[in-house]
Amino acid sequence: MGYTEFTIEGRNAVIEAYRAGKPIDKIFILDGCQDGPMMTIKREAKKHGSLIKFVDKERLDQMSETKRHQGVIAYAAAYEYAQVEELLEVAREKGEPPFLFLLDNIEDPHNLGAIIRTANLAGAHGVIIPKNRAVGLTATVARTSAGALNYTKVAKVTNLGKTIEELKKEGMWFVCGDMDGTSMYDLDLKGAIGLVIGSEGTGVSRLVKEKCDFVASIPMKGDIDSLNASVAAGVLAYEIVRQRMN
Amino acid sequence: MGYTEFTIEGRNAVIEAYRAGKPIDKIFILDGCQDGPMMTIKREAKKHGSLIKFVDKERLDQMSETKRHQGVIAYAAAYEYAQVEELLEVAREKGEPPFLFLLDNIEDPHNLGAIIRTANLAGAHGVIIPKNRAVGLTATVARTSAGALNYTKVAKVTNLGKTIEELKKEGMWFVCGDMDGTSMYDLDLKGAIGLVIGSEGTGVSRLVKEKCDFVASIPMKGDIDSLNASVAAGVLAYEIVRQRMN
Repeated sequence: MGYTEFTIEGRNAVIEAYRAGKPIDKIFILDGCQDGPMMTIKREAKKHGSLIKFVDKERLDQMSETKRHQGVIAYAAAYEYAQVEELLEVAREKGEPPFLFLLDNIEDPHNLGAIIRTANLAGAHGVIIPKNRAVGLTATVARTSAGALNYTKVAKVTNLGKTIEELKKEGMWFVCGDMDGTSMYDLDLKGAIGLVIGSEGTGVSRLVKEKCDFVASIPMKGDIDSLNASVAAGVLAYEIVRQRMN
Repeated sequence: MGYTEFTIEGRNAVIEAYRAGKPIDKIFILDGCQDGPMMTIKREAKKHGSLIKFVDKERLDQMSETKRHQGVIAYAAAYEYAQVEELLEVAREKGEPPFLFLLDNIEDPHNLGAIIRTANLAGAHGVIIPKNRAVGLTATVARTSAGALNYTKVAKVTNLGKTIEELKKEGMWFVCGDMDGTSMYDLDLKGAIGLVIGSEGTGVSRLVKEKCDFVASIPMKGDIDSLNASVAAGVLAYEIVRQRMN
């Protein structure tokens, strides 16, 4: 697959990019701009789940490479997201029960990169991230994934809860990590499994948690609240690996 | 304990700070400065294992808060490092066999903070870091430890290999994580144990590795080389937790 990031500047170029289906992670728009083309851009940005930031002219001028931004600069990933079905296909090809990571709004690109790296090494068949709010596959993510982004497929979905429902029909079980769950050592985590990791600040969202079959907790023997999100993902993933190896 | 970071500017102030035993992580010295007081500062910096950076006047002027740096600015941690003996005392007080983390030159402050956070939650009795080359307890470390630095004692030692030898006399075993080791699931990691984590780039150094009783590997089922250092530390630590809970 490979990954690069590039910017698209100017109204027509950005509209064309959306129409061509280019994955645009982030878009910077001149604050207060309300004309026709800009309204189209905002509509497309919302439709495609790009993160929209309203900034002043000075900021855009600084960011601009072409110096002809016309009030809009978009950051696109030259990364082609996979379809969820392709992730299951990877499992089928390996003759293994599916093992997927689902990330419920991870916001820190370093964590996202580290988690994709972990997913690769734990033998997961892919990673599913939500379209909105969460961080996308930026250059920082690519770098901190240490190359894993070239091997591990990432799918972006509109609604994580709905994706879980659909995957349940394919025979998958879902476990999310949360403090009030059953100790991960006491759960049976074999078989076709989806590991759901919550966001750094607020954990797994209620709607997603309700769809999960199990809530697994990592034993906490210390004084503070929680592990770093990528460490927690690693610890949970390797409990799954251990049980699968038995 | 608590933690804050502050700067010390000016020759006398820095010399006094060293003489008072203040833990200075990092010191910026005007490149080419060779007078008497500066030679004293360099000698003290080496003696106390501060990271020395030679910079130009412009850089010092930018960093300076007092605008009277006289060619030297030191970054001190208002964190009191513990003695190794105090770490063992924590274990004795809890009536548990000692469980320590030893970090062989972790360079990224985010990783160091995340590892101290993991040490706290895995119930380890303290963390040992080497004086040289590795990152010290900077503001970033304090922040990424999510408060763990206020609870988990950190000791700084001159020679990690020598510390391991001394702790072996106290009945401790040492395991380091490395790719060519025995699967961590096949090792007996109970009892009084020190977990040695290697640096991000080069892993555990040869001299430290030779002192370890076991080399534990995390099963790698993917395409890339290695986990993020803080994730690897978490996965290894929780295999120790699992075995201790049995």
